[in-house]
Amino acid sequence: MTRTAPLIAAALTIGLIAPAFAQSTPPAVSARQGQMNLMALNIGVIAGMARGTADYDADMAQIAANNLVTLAALDQSFTWPEGTDNFLIEGSRALPEIWTDPEGFAADYGDFAAAAEAIAAAAGGGLDALRGAIGPLGGSCGACHDDYREPN
Amino acid sequence: MTRTAPLIAAALTIGLIAPAFAQSTPPAVSARQGQMNLMALNIGVIAGMARGTADYDADMAQIAANNLVTLAALDQSFTWPEGTDNFLIEGSRALPEIWTDPEGFAADYGDFAAAAEAIAAAAGGGLDALRGAIGPLGGSCGACHDDYREPN
Repeated sequence: MTRTAPLIAAALTIGLIAPAFAQSTPPAVSARQGQMNLMALNIGVIAGMARGTADYDADMAQIAANNLVTLAALDQSFTWPEGTDNFLIEGSRALPEIWTDPEGFAADYGDFAAAAEAIAAAAGGGLDALRGAIGPLGGSCGACHDDYREPN
Repeated sequence: MTRTAPLIAAALTIGLIAPAFAQSTPPAVSARQGQMNLMALNIGVIAGMARGTADYDADMAQIAANNLVTLAALDQSFTWPEGTDNFLIEGSRALPEIWTDPEGFAADYGDFAAAAEAIAAAAGGGLDALRGAIGPLGGSCGACHDDYREPN
């Protein structure tokens, strides 16, 4: 037994070291990661058109933008329970700052909702309009990820 | 070389055998699985109250039910591209019937939307009202999974 073993045992007992390796992904974490995947899929449709890697299609752009507005309307009460940060949950990149700075996190989420509304208003109006509205959308993703997501 | 090897090589060439083992999960599959995880999380809130494993809370029940209505409003144009069934994509349980019977699949999805609306109308009105509306919700999940999802 090394000198650190009792310390590790004590830390485990009082919960300082989480047995992340032993638990499966909590439903809330799977759900919020799914939410991000849904956002990414729809943003990908719009971003592909903006970049020119896909042909502009007003109907498809509108559908994707509307989906982003719908996703932004999901209430987040159940998707971010305490105890599901990246330290406690293997496979999560959610930083503890989500829980220590809930107002900032909610504000960033609100910025995403506003950006989604803006792109929904522009997406069907032609490629130039779409391109003009995509900046704030990408910016809202990046701002939140910078502050509240563990870097890769 | 066995007699079947040329047949397998030919099948691979014309795409009859998909290299599912070699590819990562397509974004559309991650997104639709995420959608199901979001549904499950919110249904879990309601089901826990209905079963009595969680205390009834009108506000929480209403939030969960509203989220189901929101999720049902997501346009499904991008989440089920052809070529993403359980034979072609490792980790997907989506049966080919989704693509051979799109009307049936859409009808089942519509039943979920109707059940979500019904539970949203009832969820905040007390535990008895919630319990009275949960049957069609669970039924809509089961009906679609029976027909369009690979059994475990």
